[in-house]
Amino acid sequence: MASACASMAAVRPTVARKVSLPKSRKAAVARRASVPVRAVGIEQEVALDEAPLTLLREGGEDDASSMRARFEKMIRAAQDEIVSAIEELDGQKFQEDAWTRPGGGGGISRVLQDGNVFEKAGVNVSVVYGQMPPEAYRAATGEGGGGKEMIPFFAAGISSVMHPKNPMAPTVHFNYRYFETDAPEGAEGAPRAWWFGGGTDLTPSYIFNDDAAHFHGTLKDVCDKHDETFYPRFKEWADDYFIIKHRMNERRGIGGVFFDDMNDRPQEELLAFATDMAGAVVPAYVPLVAKHKDDEYTETEKEWQQMRRGRYVEFNLVYDRGTTFGLRTGGRIESILMSLPLTARWQYDMQPEEGSREADALDAFRNPRTWVA
Amino acid sequence: MASACASMAAVRPTVARKVSLPKSRKAAVARRASVPVRAVGIEQEVALDEAPLTLLREGGEDDASSMRARFEKMIRAAQDEIVSAIEELDGQKFQEDAWTRPGGGGGISRVLQDGNVFEKAGVNVSVVYGQMPPEAYRAATGEGGGGKEMIPFFAAGISSVMHPKNPMAPTVHFNYRYFETDAPEGAEGAPRAWWFGGGTDLTPSYIFNDDAAHFHGTLKDVCDKHDETFYPRFKEWADDYFIIKHRMNERRGIGGVFFDDMNDRPQEELLAFATDMAGAVVPAYVPLVAKHKDDEYTETEKEWQQMRRGRYVEFNLVYDRGTTFGLRTGGRIESILMSLPLTARWQYDMQPEEGSREADALDAFRNPRTWVA
Repeated sequence: MASACASMAAVRPTVARKVSLPKSRKAAVARRASVPVRAVGIEQEVALDEAPLTLLREGGEDDASSMRARFEKMIRAAQDEIVSAIEELDGQKFQEDAWTRPGGGGGISRVLQDGNVFEKAGVNVSVVYGQMPPEAYRAATGEGGGGKEMIPFFAAGISSVMHPKNPMAPTVHFNYRYFETDAPEGAEGAPRAWWFGGGTDLTPSYIFNDDAAHFHGTLKDVCDKHDETFYPRFKEWADDYFIIKHRMNERRGIGGVFFDDMNDRPQEELLAFATDMAGAVVPAYVPLVAKHKDDEYTETEKEWQQMRRGRYVEFNLVYDRGTTFGLRTGGRIESILMSLPLTARWQYDMQPEEGSREADALDAFRNPRTWVA
Repeated sequence: MASACASMAAVRPTVARKVSLPKSRKAAVARRASVPVRAVGIEQEVALDEAPLTLLREGGEDDASSMRARFEKMIRAAQDEIVSAIEELDGQKFQEDAWTRPGGGGGISRVLQDGNVFEKAGVNVSVVYGQMPPEAYRAATGEGGGGKEMIPFFAAGISSVMHPKNPMAPTVHFNYRYFETDAPEGAEGAPRAWWFGGGTDLTPSYIFNDDAAHFHGTLKDVCDKHDETFYPRFKEWADDYFIIKHRMNERRGIGGVFFDDMNDRPQEELLAFATDMAGAVVPAYVPLVAKHKDDEYTETEKEWQQMRRGRYVEFNLVYDRGTTFGLRTGGRIESILMSLPLTARWQYDMQPEEGSREADALDAFRNPRTWVA
């Protein structure tokens, strides 16, 4: 599961007040690919008996009006709201694990496993204080200068994956995150850079056009309220991001929206956008599971779902930025890999029959469709 | 599954006649880690109706006495022998897929899926002609020089993973490979470098001391016939290689032997060693499955096996050199991922009970044991 440090692998800060986004997303992606990902050691976590009031550093720089504090408040409220909605649908409760790190930061993982409706559902919030190598900062920003000091960063995020049991009910993933870098230790200190990122995407095993239109439509409505260019850009970005390259560019699902490195407008506006997007998860997703949770299915359909779960594992372990970053930097492993399904399948050379519903799904994964005008 | 190009990610050729192995394996490993792995495009394969007499280039430089030809002959004989032994044990037949590439090279995959004894067993041979970027060659060898030409390479190998159904019966993996680089195009042409690599390792879900001693002992006997330093060195190398770093350095199993970059003695001797090691797979492994294939087991034991299968997936997709190289370079995906189990499981925060057999297995994976003196 993409942890709060998800976008660390994509470190691309810009100077806070002198906004300088690259002209196109493609340029950002190309630059990002050349940034060497370095292991940034994050301290071992300490388990807590219960979730703390805040994961921010005690006595730190963050009063209640800081973006750090407000973002944490938003993601924790979103975690509560989504967990409640899923518990109501499933009839079973999530288990909670909370932890902190000695240097500050921590997380709260909530997991529902082998429920009535869900095979596995996890909703994770985390706050990370870390140090980024200056080469990574320079490579990312294109700034010169010979500093050798590590750049302190702060990241907070919510991330979630929910895998239902019924093969007709889709899997959802979402992740919303806020990132800041500070001046190097000892230097004077307003934040040097900040940005927002996130997204929500759907991974069905079978395609239901109405469901896809409902899911994309709900996300589009929220996007449109903030900027009518968002949905078309972020829908395409998701189609480009969730690609399993070694599977002839199959996507893991039918996408949704994905964005990163957002800092081209006031923080207030971006916080409001992230808040609304997190709030859209329940209305976009829950009705689809409610509709299909008791659908009849065959053993073959269950196997197809399990094979698609295998593809999900391949995407997450090989390509997902948050997961691969988490694996390299030693985050809390059970939270990082909460995103993996309870069970998955790899059947040698499985090819769906022409004209079958499985072939239709595979076609949708290979050739992204337009779900809402 | 590690394809023939397995050791490509570890390109570390040495000049053919001027043997210059690094002083210690650790140095080689450290250097290797810093070599950027580049995608070396390998042409799309063409399916064949049946396995060809040879996968080597027609009218090429390889007469029957060349090491390329002799190595191919050896791995194809090993494939036949191992497949026969597994078919006899299982009672079901392997399916075969053969392919070539327009520029030469190809492979033969044999897979037995959902058999009587095996969940999935694959034995793959392949021959790859490719081009390696000169920076990778220089970084790997430490040689200077300003050449910009791609370095042609040849790789041939056999690789296999076999996953039995019964949780008391272990999984085995083996891979033996031969690698050559040529002078750059247009330059005069004896091979510039060559080396052998390979290994055989065992992944049980439950530890049976006698079985582990039989497996390691059989490998040790073969190693000792060639060089008494081999087994201790290659056993430790396997313990170091099959580590799942993000799982607190858990190994995927109880190891065996692993070696790479071997060119410190005549090719004849190394071919003989690789031949004997491939020949040891059946006597080392088949008796263990024969012994346990009908053992009784509980649902909990099956779940533990499935969870260990999940770890196998994590190791192969995240760390295995052959698999990760194959994913990046576009080899035949169904052959590369033949190594993945038919089914696997990820259960949130599963911790074995103290004193249980599962806890004993986990301890063996975390703290490699001495199985034979």
